[in-house]
Amino acid sequence: MESALSAGIELVAGLPTIRVDFRVRYAECDAFGYLHHAKYWEYFEQTRTELLRACGIRYRELEAQGVYFVVYKCACRYRRPVVYDDLVTVTARVLRTTHTRVDHAYEVHRADELTCQASTTLACVDRNGHPQAMPAALWTHDR
Amino acid sequence: MESALSAGIELVAGLPTIRVDFRVRYAECDAFGYLHHAKYWEYFEQTRTELLRACGIRYRELEAQGVYFVVYKCACRYRRPVVYDDLVTVTARVLRTTHTRVDHAYEVHRADELTCQASTTLACVDRNGHPQAMPAALWTHDR
Amino acid sequence: MESALSAGIELVAGLPTIRVDFRVRYAECDAFGYLHHAKYWEYFEQTRTELLRACGIRYRELEAQGVYFVVYKCACRYRRPVVYDDLVTVTARVLRTTHTRVDHAYEVHRADELTCQASTTLACVDRNGHPQAMPAALWTHDR
Amino acid sequence: MESALSAGIELVAGLPTIRVDFRVRYAECDAFGYLHHAKYWEYFEQTRTELLRACGIRYRELEAQGVYFVVYKCACRYRRPVVYDDLVTVTARVLRTTHTRVDHAYEVHRADELTCQASTTLACVDRNGHPQAMPAALWTHDR
Repeated sequence: MESALSAGIELVAGLPTIRVDFRVRYAECDAFGYLHHAKYWEYFEQTRTELLRACGIRYRELEAQGVYFVVYKCACRYRRPVVYDDLVTVTARVLRTTHTRVDHAYEVHRADELTCQASTTLACVDRNGHPQAMPAALWTHDR
Repeated sequence: MESALSAGIELVAGLPTIRVDFRVRYAECDAFGYLHHAKYWEYFEQTRTELLRACGIRYRELEAQGVYFVVYKCACRYRRPVVYDDLVTVTARVLRTTHTRVDHAYEVHRADELTCQASTTLACVDRNGHPQAMPAALWTHDR
Repeated sequence: MESALSAGIELVAGLPTIRVDFRVRYAECDAFGYLHHAKYWEYFEQTRTELLRACGIRYRELEAQGVYFVVYKCACRYRRPVVYDDLVTVTARVLRTTHTRVDHAYEVHRADELTCQASTTLACVDRNGHPQAMPAALWTHDR
Repeated sequence: MESALSAGIELVAGLPTIRVDFRVRYAECDAFGYLHHAKYWEYFEQTRTELLRACGIRYRELEAQGVYFVVYKCACRYRRPVVYDDLVTVTARVLRTTHTRVDHAYEVHRADELTCQASTTLACVDRNGHPQAMPAALWTHDR
C-alpha cells in the first residue's frame, strides 16, 4: 500500500486496489462442502462494484446512463478450498484500462493464506451490447 | 389426467397442468448434499415457462410486449430431501386466475415419491412494476 | 428492543432477534432487474447463521458435532421490489422452539420501507437426515 | 464426429465428446438480461456429469467410493451474449488425462453461432481434498 485515496481504496504499485470481506454462505457451497468454483465470480463482481464505489462511482448509475460492462474473458486458479462460514478477503486491482476495456486481477485470502487468483477483462457496451468507449472519468481514473 | 391439450400440457380437474423433469445439478446442492431449498423456486419458475410454452405462449415475448409477472407470495413444504443427480419431476398446475394474478400449485416427485409441495401467487405488472391487467388470452386460457 | 444480549443480538418481546445488512449483488438480480425471489432464502439462511453466532454458537461447529438443521417449510410475501446495489436489512427472530424444530420470522427493510416478510420452520436432523432432538443449549436459549 | 460410442458420446479427433442442451432459466440471467457469466460453469459441470454418464460412470457413485474431482483452474471467453429462454448446446471434450488431472474444453453454441469457449483442469482428490490418482477406468477411457 502506497497511499490511501479514500476509506476503501489504495494505490498498489500505482493501481487502484480494494479489499472486500466475504463470509461464505451455506448456499454458496456445493455438495463437497467447498465454496463452489462458480461463486467466486460473484465475489469478484461485487468487489468491482465496491472498487467503483470507493472511486466515487456507483455502477448502478453508470447503467442508468447507458454505460454497461460485460465480462469478455476470465481465468482463475483455485489453490486452496474455502468452506462454509470461512471469512475471505477479495483483493481486486485494475491492471490496465483502454477506452473500451478494463483488466482486473483478483486474489482471495483466508487470513494470510492465498486461496485463489483470477483475472477478468471487461468490455464497455451500450444497452444493446455493442462496444462503446467508456466515459473518460473511468479510463483515466488510474493515472 | 383427463385430456391432453398438446404435447406437454394436460387438464387435471379442468386445470392446465404440466410436468417437467430436472436433473439435480451439483452446484444446486448445498454443503449438506441436499438440493438447496432456495433452488426449488428456480425449478418452479422454469416449469411455469414451460407451462406457458405448452399453451403457445413464450414468456420472453410477453416481456417484450410489456407484460411481466412477479412472484407476490409463495409457500413450500419440503417433505423428503433430494440430492445431486436425482431426477425429479415438477408438476405445476394453474389453480386460479384473475385479471391481475395467477395462483400455481407445484409438486415434486422422485419416481413415485412426493418430495415437495409448493404454491405461488404471481402478479402481472408493467415494466415499472405497477400492477396491470394481464392479456385476456392468459386469464381465460383455463376456461 | 428491550435489552441487548451481545453486540448483535437483542430480545424483542422476549425473543432473540438479529439484524443483518446485505448489499444486493448484481448476480442475485434477475432479468427484470429485481433481487430474484429465490435469493431471499439465502439472505435468511445467512441471517440465521449470524443469529446463532450472536448467541455464541457457530453453525459450522454444530454440523461437525452431527447437529444439522434443514428447512421443513417456508412462506414469503414480497411487498416491494429490491434491486441491484440496494442495501437491505434482514431482521430474523426466533418465534418458537421445540425439541426438534425452530420457527423463525423475517422482515426485509430498505431504509424504513418494509419490502418482504417471511417465515421458516427448521427441523433438527442427524447426518442421515433423520429427526433428532436438538442440544438443550439451543432449544432453551430463548427462555 | 468419427464414431458414436453410445447414445450420447462421440469421439472427435479420438477424444470423448458430448453435447448437452440447456434452456437458459430466468433466474440464471442477470439484471442486464444476459446469462450471468458465473452460470456457465454450472452448465459445464453438468455437461461433465453427462459425459461421464455416457461413458457408463455416475459421478455420484465415484464420490460414494471416495473419488472426487475439484476444479483446479479454468478460463473462459464470452463471445456473444446469451439471454433468457435461449436454447444453447454445450459441447465438452476431454483434452488430456493424467493419473491425477483431466483437462476439458467447452464450446457453447446457440444454433450455429459459437457464443463461448472455455477450458478447465480438474484434480482428483480424496474426501479430505488431498490429491489422489484417479481409478484406471477413468484415465484410460479415452485410449
